[in-house]
Amino acid sequence: MSPDMAVLLYDNPVSGNCHKVRLILGLLGIEYERHELSVVDRSDRAEVLTGLSASLNVPTVVLDDGRPLAESNAILWYFADGSRYLPDDPYERAQVLQWLFFEQYKHEPAIAVVRFWVGYAETPPPAAEIEARRTAGRAALEVMERHLSEHDYFVAARFTIADIALYAYTHVAPEGGFDLAPYPAVRAWLDRIEAEPGIVPISA
Amino acid sequence: MSPDMAVLLYDNPVSGNCHKVRLILGLLGIEYERHELSVVDRSDRAEVLTGLSASLNVPTVVLDDGRPLAESNAILWYFADGSRYLPDDPYERAQVLQWLFFEQYKHEPAIAVVRFWVGYAETPPPAAEIEARRTAGRAALEVMERHLSEHDYFVAARFTIADIALYAYTHVAPEGGFDLAPYPAVRAWLDRIEAEPGIVPISA
Repeated sequence: MSPDMAVLLYDNPVSGNCHKVRLILGLLGIEYERHELSVVDRSDRAEVLTGLSASLNVPTVVLDDGRPLAESNAILWYFADGSRYLPDDPYERAQVLQWLFFEQYKHEPAIAVVRFWVGYAETPPPAAEIEARRTAGRAALEVMERHLSEHDYFVAARFTIADIALYAYTHVAPEGGFDLAPYPAVRAWLDRIEAEPGIVPISA
Repeated sequence: MSPDMAVLLYDNPVSGNCHKVRLILGLLGIEYERHELSVVDRSDRAEVLTGLSASLNVPTVVLDDGRPLAESNAILWYFADGSRYLPDDPYERAQVLQWLFFEQYKHEPAIAVVRFWVGYAETPPPAAEIEARRTAGRAALEVMERHLSEHDYFVAARFTIADIALYAYTHVAPEGGFDLAPYPAVRAWLDRIEAEPGIVPISA
C-alpha cells in the first residue's frame, strides 16, 4: 500500500488482452512492473490471482495504491479516463463502450480464440469447431469493415481506446488463419493505428 | 430529431439483454416506446437496424435526439451515469465495468445461450455442445457465488447497474436447466435484488 508502489501487471506476452494494457500504460507514460503468467499452463492461476481477479484471468493489474482491477477493457477505461484517449462527451463515451462490448462479445471469442487454438493450444478442438469460429470471426471483421468504410476511427473521428481494444487482436488475426485481403478499410485503419505514436504490434 | 421524441427501444420480451434496458429506464422514470423484434426469425434485422446497431442486435435504443446506441451494457451505463445506480468514484466505476465485461464474456454466452437453445431455438445444437456451455455457465455462477459470499452487491456495497446486468440472465438460469441450489449466496442476492423498488422478473 506504499504510495511509491508501481502498477503491477499480471501479463502474458502473446495475449492481445494484455497487449491492450501495455499499450495504454505506455501511451500515458505510466511505469509498471510485469509478472508473467502462462496462458497454456493455468495451474498457478488460483494461487496467484485469487482476490485480484474473479475470473483468474490476465490481464489483471494492481494499482499503485494496492487495489486490484481485472478485465482488459475495464482496465483500459480506468487508465484512459481523463486523457485524450477517452472522450468527455457522454454519448461518445457510450459509443466507446458499445465497441468495447462488441470486441469482447463478438470479436475476441472468435478471432482471439482461433488464434490461440491454432498457434498456442496443446489440444486444439476439432477442425469443424475451429471453422465455425472462423465464420464468426469473419462476421466481426465485416462489422468493422462496414464501419471503417465510413469512419477513420471507431468513435469521435479520432483515436480512442475503442481503437486500441479492436487493434489488439485484429492486427494478429492472420495468425489465426484470417485473411484480411477482403477488408481494405480494416487494413487502412490498421495502418492508421500503427502510425499513432506509441502504438506497436504485439511482437514488437 | 424532435426534442419531444420518446426514447425508442428495439426490444424482445424474452431477451435478458433487453430486460436490463427496460429495468434501468423504469427505475429512472424515462418514458419509451417499444418496437419488438424476433430473436428467432432475424430476417428483418438488417432492414430495421442497419445504421442503428453494428451487430444488428436487440436491445438497440434511439435516444430522444435521434442518435442510436447498441449493446445492452453500454446502454445501461449511458442512462445510469449521474444516477444512484452508477457510482461517481473512478475505481468503483472501473469495478462496475469489470463485472459488466464478465457478464458479457463469461456469463451471457453460457447461461443466456443455453436458455435460448433449450427454450427458444428452432434447431438447438447437439446435447454435448449444450452440456459444454452448461459447464461454462456453472463456472460463471461459481465466480458470482464466491464474490457474493463476501459482498451483498457486486460493487460499492450497494445496488448498481452491475447487479442489474447480472440479474438479467441469472434469475432465469433455471429455464436453461441450471440448478441454483448449490449457490446460496447467489439465491440470497437474487432475493435482495428483487426487493429493490422497480425490479421485476422478466416474466412480470
